[in-house]
Amino acid sequence: MLKGIVIGNVVSTRKQEALVGSKFMEVQILQNGKETDEYIIAVDSVGAGIGETVLLTTGSSARLALSHPNVPTDAVIVGIVDPV
Amino acid sequence: MLKGIVIGNVVSTRKQEALVGSKFMEVQILQNGKETDEYIIAVDSVGAGIGETVLLTTGSSARLALSHPNVPTDAVIVGIVDPV
Amino acid sequence: MLKGIVIGNVVSTRKQEALVGSKFMEVQILQNGKETDEYIIAVDSVGAGIGETVLLTTGSSARLALSHPNVPTDAVIVGIVDPV
Amino acid sequence: MLKGIVIGNVVSTRKQEALVGSKFMEVQILQNGKETDEYIIAVDSVGAGIGETVLLTTGSSARLALSHPNVPTDAVIVGIVDPV
Amino acid sequence: MLKGIVIGNVVSTRKQEALVGSKFMEVQILQNGKETDEYIIAVDSVGAGIGETVLLTTGSSARLALSHPNVPTDAVIVGIVDPV
Repeated sequence: MLKGIVIGNVVSTRKQEALVGSKFMEVQILQNGKETDEYIIAVDSVGAGIGETVLLTTGSSARLALSHPNVPTDAVIVGIVDPV
Repeated sequence: MLKGIVIGNVVSTRKQEALVGSKFMEVQILQNGKETDEYIIAVDSVGAGIGETVLLTTGSSARLALSHPNVPTDAVIVGIVDPV
Repeated sequence: MLKGIVIGNVVSTRKQEALVGSKFMEVQILQNGKETDEYIIAVDSVGAGIGETVLLTTGSSARLALSHPNVPTDAVIVGIVDPV
Repeated sequence: MLKGIVIGNVVSTRKQEALVGSKFMEVQILQNGKETDEYIIAVDSVGAGIGETVLLTTGSSARLALSHPNVPTDAVIVGIVDPV
Repeated sequence: MLKGIVIGNVVSTRKQEALVGSKFMEVQILQNGKETDEYIIAVDSVGAGIGETVLLTTGSSARLALSHPNVPTDAVIVGIVDPV
């Protein structure tokens, strides 16, 4: 998994029917706590908010975090990292 | 998922039979809204046009966006990002 | 697989139910024994401790190392490398 | 998918039995038509020749392009890009 | 697939039970015949030796090269490249 910080949400009106109802968040990847130039758009499954540090699962395993495993996404926010 | 901008289409006359009928688009990946040097060829599933900003699902999850899940592709355009 | 060194653990109170009980470790990837700038958060399956060099399996194969294959993770520590 | 140019073939006499009969091509990845430093060895499924620009599917989806889906490969040439 | 050169083996006494009996090799990735800074730890399935140039399959497809498809690995040596 990757650690990242939620920097915003992404709105897509025209999208795959299976994605309707999913909340898309833009996540900036952190490496060792430092911000990188890599950004991933993920479906939120835990009610993450902007500014929170989250755990991101990518690839086909990501869909296991969703109630509908057929959602065509490759990245899901699966946890919120506790503030230190 | 990744955000990208559709910069063109790709024509392939000699291709796998399972890909006949698929529309291939060349997508330039965006990171935090900025253009990168990375390009992915994706099957379109939402009627994306050149110049539009899109959401791209990669890997085996991408095929869930297609009506025929056996299409041998690893990238599908699954949504069009609303203009801000 | 990748070789890495366990540098810490990650605490997430609000997380996917399927992840409850999993221990998250932050692993710094090694290339040819040298530390890199890449870090992966992995579920531990072998009792790895901070400072140990470990083997990391990523992607959907990682879940095969867990007793519950439906855990939504994409990285698992599957072995501890013997000290040379 | 990725666009690439076939630069040669790879001969492997000692290989997995499930790979016997597969033709391995070395493909140089193109980004926006420009050659990169990335090379992938792919199984050919469309009769691609050296010098041709091809479409490459990677990951587990690649195997869907082969008549035997159990071939242990992660990259298959699935189309030849029409010359512009 | 990727081409690489076997540079050593990796010993792990404490590991997942499903990995017992697997031989782990450290492989330095080659791009166009040149050594890179990327190293992958792979399970050997063809009797590769140190110094040999090999073909590496990564991701979930790699496991198809093993007699037990439930081995939690994401990289397997599937062939030895003939010396030119």
